Amino acid sequence: MKVYHSDLHALHAPAFEIFDGGEKIPSFETPERVECILQALRADGRFEILPPEQWSLDPIRAVHDEGYLTFLETAFTDWMREPTDYEKTALLPSTFALSRRAGRVPASILGRAGYYMMDLSAPIVAGTWQAALASAHCALSAARLISSLRSAVQTSVSAFALCRPPGHHAGRAFCGGYCYINNAAVAAHWLTQFGNVALLDVDYHAANGTQDIFYERADVLTLSIHADPAEEYPYYWGYADETGAGEGKGYHQNFPLPFGVDDTTYLKTLERALERIATYRPAFLVLSAGMDIYGQDPLGRIRVTTAGIAEIGRQIAALALPTVVVLEGGYHNAALGTNLLAFLEAFHAA
Amino acid sequence: MKVYHSDLHALHAPAFEIFDGGEKIPSFETPERVECILQALRADGRFEILPPEQWSLDPIRAVHDEGYLTFLETAFTDWMREPTDYEKTALLPSTFALSRRAGRVPASILGRAGYYMMDLSAPIVAGTWQAALASAHCALSAARLISSLRSAVQTSVSAFALCRPPGHHAGRAFCGGYCYINNAAVAAHWLTQFGNVALLDVDYHAANGTQDIFYERADVLTLSIHADPAEEYPYYWGYADETGAGEGKGYHQNFPLPFGVDDTTYLKTLERALERIATYRPAFLVLSAGMDIYGQDPLGRIRVTTAGIAEIGRQIAALALPTVVVLEGGYHNAALGTNLLAFLEAFHAA
Repeated sequence: MKVYHSDLHALHAPAFEIFDGGEKIPSFETPERVECILQALRADGRFEILPPEQWSLDPIRAVHDEGYLTFLETAFTDWMREPTDYEKTALLPSTFALSRRAGRVPASILGRAGYYMMDLSAPIVAGTWQAALASAHCALSAARLISSLRSAVQTSVSAFALCRPPGHHAGRAFCGGYCYINNAAVAAHWLTQFGNVALLDVDYHAANGTQDIFYERADVLTLSIHADPAEEYPYYWGYADETGAGEGKGYHQNFPLPFGVDDTTYLKTLERALERIATYRPAFLVLSAGMDIYGQDPLGRIRVTTAGIAEIGRQIAALALPTVVVLEGGYHNAALGTNLLAFLEAFHAA
Repeated sequence: MKVYHSDLHALHAPAFEIFDGGEKIPSFETPERVECILQALRADGRFEILPPEQWSLDPIRAVHDEGYLTFLETAFTDWMREPTDYEKTALLPSTFALSRRAGRVPASILGRAGYYMMDLSAPIVAGTWQAALASAHCALSAARLISSLRSAVQTSVSAFALCRPPGHHAGRAFCGGYCYINNAAVAAHWLTQFGNVALLDVDYHAANGTQDIFYERADVLTLSIHADPAEEYPYYWGYADETGAGEGKGYHQNFPLPFGVDDTTYLKTLERALERIATYRPAFLVLSAGMDIYGQDPLGRIRVTTAGIAEIGRQIAALALPTVVVLEGGYHNAALGTNLLAFLEAFHAA
């Protein structure tokens, strides 16, 4: 299977995030995550690791707000220019635009930061923009590959975008939860030029960014299976009754799960999501693959096993759709490679 | 002059706040602020310091959201029940409900915290609710005093509510910037039973909470003179073109000032605000008096002197309205008493 990966991810490595209660702690989302996965893919031998192609900003602009992208690109430099009486390591504001009004973006860098950032776990460092772009380019390259092979081969093929930073918490105009550019959304939108797309998110956390981006669209069916946001991050999106709006009414579906669910319950829920996808009959599938559903994940509280993850992969692969698998979360580094190999096992490579 | 003050303020003393960049620092808003002011008032000898009367929750409910008040009352206890792997000192969430939707309040305490809190400078400790209630009661008691004396005396009288925690950043359903219950708004609304009220805010920071609460009302004219929110906290409210909505259209006015303005510029701006109040012909005036316009304030960046503060007080007192002076910010403790005495000098006591 072809895997798109860029070394530029390592330019983004914030030293900290802030947890509830206010302590700075080392970020869970580290460059080591990618190293662990690469090691497993290389040891397996069936993966061809490729650099992403070069892309213009257009496919990213198609799903993100222009002002937001300018902010991401310039925020760190602007902040470095600001005189402050504290040491600057990673840009993180202390004031947030609760109930923000579109278009009322403050001039100051810290005001802009609080306007575009939803939490304390997406600090911006010098290399964030470059790493986030390269991550999106991996997803786009995988999308181009599967779209180009679709008519040439009998079996639907899949490709894997080893994206870092992840993307599914990034909305049209906000970052959060380790995410800056929504890689899966960028790939999904790009694929709509060839046909409808289903975007299924199996990360432990609700795909609030993806939901935000496609909420009023019917040409991308979005579905997310995740821990109940009433009890878990990202809290403010991902509820079962949020089903899309306007033209997108009925084209978004959330499957919130209580803490502690096991393989059986997870797979039953997945079955419902896959039925919806089958009804929709998309030309492509984009998969937001977070490995933090794994029972031992330090940030997760549901109990899926490696065998369960393999079965989830099998069930999704059985849709037999050209598929872009996009990496999202997963923070149990020692098991990350094993779980990802198990997940990818059933997908057809080019 | 009668001064309402409660010792309960000391129950609220969060050990820290978080500044931009993510460091925990000692809170600027301390119990010592009140001690400094009390010392100056007592030394002056012309002030009678009284405890607030007891009040039901009704006048507070009149300006704050019910769910928000329940959150303030129960948040710390709920959080203490939550199992966490960090030491709990003051409740501060790490995820914020950017563009929150009314009614979509998560069940979890940390989700609720991010729904109702706009920044990292209003942590909730065990005594926050009690202290905030007592602070509002001081404002209400001062309001009752001036309303009861209004017809009995020739000259319009004033009273001072030594409120701590302050209130003007607290909106109908959010806390932030050291503020939990909007004391000035509570007093202003309570006074509307007797006639229209003008609420003038001369704190260094924009009165975003007050703006939020009265934005669609014409019976309370709200005006705020402050550092330009494009460059200064609270960033997302307090712009000159925000003038009220619905029935309140034309009954809110912001006067943003650039950094560094001096007494002369400040007083010219004040003149415009006072002209608007005179036109409105209110029965009462509520004054949100922040002393952080003082040139040496550690959080302020405009350059008003003690003489300037005295002149501001004189100009406002010349309106000859029954006035409740409510303490808001001011963090240069050594000058706090002097500045406040200068400010209050021209107001008529009962």
